[in-house]
Amino acid sequence: MAIKDLFQKELKVVNIGLESFKESLDQCRAPSVQVDWRPPLAMDAAVIGAVRAASETIARANAQAVAKVLAARPYLIGLEKALDAVPGMKKNLLLHAGPPVTWERMCGPMRGAVMGALIYEGLAKTPEEAGKLAQSGAVEFAPCHEHSAVGPMAGIISPSMPVFVLKNEENGNLGYCTLNEGLGKVLRYGAYGPEVVKKLKWMETVLYPALKKAVAKLGKVDLKNIIAQALHMGDEVHNRNRAATSLFYRAVAPAIVRTAPDAETAAQVLEFINGNDHFFLNLSMPASKVSLDAARGVASSSLVVAMARNGTDFGIQLSGTGDEWFTGPAPVPDALFFAGFTKKDANPDIGDSAITETNGLGGFAIAASPAIVQFVGGNAADAVNYTRRMYEISLAESASYQIPALDFRGSPTGIDAIKVVEKGIFPVIDTGVAHREPGVGQVGAGILNAPAEPFQKALAGLAKKLGRNQ
Amino acid sequence: MAIKDLFQKELKVVNIGLESFKESLDQCRAPSVQVDWRPPLAMDAAVIGAVRAASETIARANAQAVAKVLAARPYLIGLEKALDAVPGMKKNLLLHAGPPVTWERMCGPMRGAVMGALIYEGLAKTPEEAGKLAQSGAVEFAPCHEHSAVGPMAGIISPSMPVFVLKNEENGNLGYCTLNEGLGKVLRYGAYGPEVVKKLKWMETVLYPALKKAVAKLGKVDLKNIIAQALHMGDEVHNRNRAATSLFYRAVAPAIVRTAPDAETAAQVLEFINGNDHFFLNLSMPASKVSLDAARGVASSSLVVAMARNGTDFGIQLSGTGDEWFTGPAPVPDALFFAGFTKKDANPDIGDSAITETNGLGGFAIAASPAIVQFVGGNAADAVNYTRRMYEISLAESASYQIPALDFRGSPTGIDAIKVVEKGIFPVIDTGVAHREPGVGQVGAGILNAPAEPFQKALAGLAKKLGRNQ
Repeated sequence: MAIKDLFQKELKVVNIGLESFKESLDQCRAPSVQVDWRPPLAMDAAVIGAVRAASETIARANAQAVAKVLAARPYLIGLEKALDAVPGMKKNLLLHAGPPVTWERMCGPMRGAVMGALIYEGLAKTPEEAGKLAQSGAVEFAPCHEHSAVGPMAGIISPSMPVFVLKNEENGNLGYCTLNEGLGKVLRYGAYGPEVVKKLKWMETVLYPALKKAVAKLGKVDLKNIIAQALHMGDEVHNRNRAATSLFYRAVAPAIVRTAPDAETAAQVLEFINGNDHFFLNLSMPASKVSLDAARGVASSSLVVAMARNGTDFGIQLSGTGDEWFTGPAPVPDALFFAGFTKKDANPDIGDSAITETNGLGGFAIAASPAIVQFVGGNAADAVNYTRRMYEISLAESASYQIPALDFRGSPTGIDAIKVVEKGIFPVIDTGVAHREPGVGQVGAGILNAPAEPFQKALAGLAKKLGRNQ
Repeated sequence: MAIKDLFQKELKVVNIGLESFKESLDQCRAPSVQVDWRPPLAMDAAVIGAVRAASETIARANAQAVAKVLAARPYLIGLEKALDAVPGMKKNLLLHAGPPVTWERMCGPMRGAVMGALIYEGLAKTPEEAGKLAQSGAVEFAPCHEHSAVGPMAGIISPSMPVFVLKNEENGNLGYCTLNEGLGKVLRYGAYGPEVVKKLKWMETVLYPALKKAVAKLGKVDLKNIIAQALHMGDEVHNRNRAATSLFYRAVAPAIVRTAPDAETAAQVLEFINGNDHFFLNLSMPASKVSLDAARGVASSSLVVAMARNGTDFGIQLSGTGDEWFTGPAPVPDALFFAGFTKKDANPDIGDSAITETNGLGGFAIAASPAIVQFVGGNAADAVNYTRRMYEISLAESASYQIPALDFRGSPTGIDAIKVVEKGIFPVIDTGVAHREPGVGQVGAGILNAPAEPFQKALAGLAKKLGRNQ
């Protein structure tokens, strides 16, 4: 058919590639279909070759690894001081969110949180003194993730802080997370003023013993059950935890009442939890952590077992590549900013909370949480589309965590780094945004995609291992 | 164009009427479109004429009436014994769900609940004795709705029962409802055994004083706010109240702890509420009642201010027709039946709970509650379609009660009896189903449409009033 004949007939256009071509056709009212396709990421041919050659081995390893994630049964089994419970914790160690980072490379809010934690620990009297101490080398830093722990935003865990103790009863492994401080001026967003430290002390001396006794009385709290219910109640348990917090509150309140030293203490503890719809975040994160830690160490698996950000770098770990971190610069989120703030104020992405997405929750389950778009931007249809897209890069669908709006389809679970690179589809994360300066706090919330670089590096790392495995 | 030419071209079919024609075309793969249209209900020409002639007057009246519904601000302001609070309550009076009904015409579960209430009141010792007393004429019966009250299922309110006291702070009117007993063998489903009466006594002696003191300490509880939040959390506050119950629990727990005589009592009260996700139903119903009662008595208005069922008759009231009930036989719901039960066991539709639908909640807001289809049948898309259809017969959209899945569109609020009759679209109600025999209890839950007859009669009643108004 001659080309001129083509243009004399009614055109039926299929566009592959840049959507702007389709937009031009739309303006001319020419019917066209956009193929949802992106070019694969540029990768070294040897890496691609190694991964392709091992595709069957990888598929078997991934099936084994993701089965561990799906089978996980996370329970809250108690509360302890970090020093007494977190493996490897010591008096001069501070744990932080994301991959390893030195004081010199730490972002503003993480520095702020470190200073606040040193004051809280009584190791410094002023922020200046704390800054000098942090810089001196006398304080050690390590990622939460390397100590079976996770922390939201700056994610600082210091020795005196109380932590939730979780157990994956299917696999036997433990996990840890601090207690959520609420909103406003809080340590995890880099605030370190006297009111921040005062609240942390109240949490240590009133909230912690009350919750510890209540959980001891209950024996354990089934977090998988609460999360599953919360997904039916509009939470994605990353940025929206109102339902999960409510269900947790209902579960523990009678025990708090029975074990508290007096009614007023019990009432204050209940009011603290009731005042903070994010309270459950510090349980959904370690629930995800203990689920994913069970899947670590499966040779040849491209399953992502951690995505974490320290506010400077975005890092991931794969099941098949041991303890190695693969990192790239953390992106700055597009966000709904609070009044008076803009993207210029925003710190690059920070926090271990992307462990929820790694576990098929958060942005991956955002279709279960249409109301969250009021907090992070977009509309209800966007939320459904984000989740639909995540099935493309996931290895499985959860049997427990369901999306009502998709007729109870299981949440997309278990990110395959190979699919991410091949399809150029990046994990969607919905997140809080910290001010880039220490001491300010939260400035907004939004949605972002994980950057490409860590996934490209991770695949290269996996290819290297595959070479050794063969 | 000759008819034979028509069939030689590609057919584009628009089908009006029976969907089976379209289904045949679908089977032949002939493209066709079904017009969503039903013939109007058969109505007396004089009635239609009177309503059409007054259409502007009716439109003004309806705007005024529905504005009252939208503006309502329902608060829980206290708890009292029914005898001390409910207007017109007396020692030998039992209130019941739905339009008026005599003992002779009462369905099985309502008779069972009456017998249980008479034993609970100490007026009879055995079910037989209670039955005789009920039959004797010594006990009077009246609809809850005629005493500013509502009751789920059988809806029995006896003089000693504690009731929530609600106030519509916008309009000043009060409303009343008993406390929800939970699931299993309960009075509202027609059970009357010793365990039923024992639980009612516990509610009167332990739960009621604790909640009364707690609400007194709080002053009031904003129910509109809780309902609005619950719609963002997967409730429609008729058959799904898990989120609203959670939020209410969070709001009152600290006050219960502070005012209870001891920790154990506080814990038991919290456990009772925590054990019953329907607890808030007995607050969403009177919240709807006080919202709609404010819209009563607007001359010429075709706004439905009550839909209620006594298990024998389905009755409605209009704003413009005073206290008159327009009734027809109550339909038997199609339902998801509990194991061992079928539609043969089901009692016809029963309860005042359709007051939630009358207020734009329940079946009207079911698109906010995709998870409810697991309880009442269907899939998530059905839930969205039910709500969409209800906009067709509603006068307004709520500013406060939003549907996240419809991008926060306001819930369809304020049923126009004229639209119902003209369009042949009937209010969708999602409801619990009682066994038809007294003493058994709940056998399922499902979705049904309100029957035509009450709406046809109501329109005739309105036409008569219009004649008098002119």
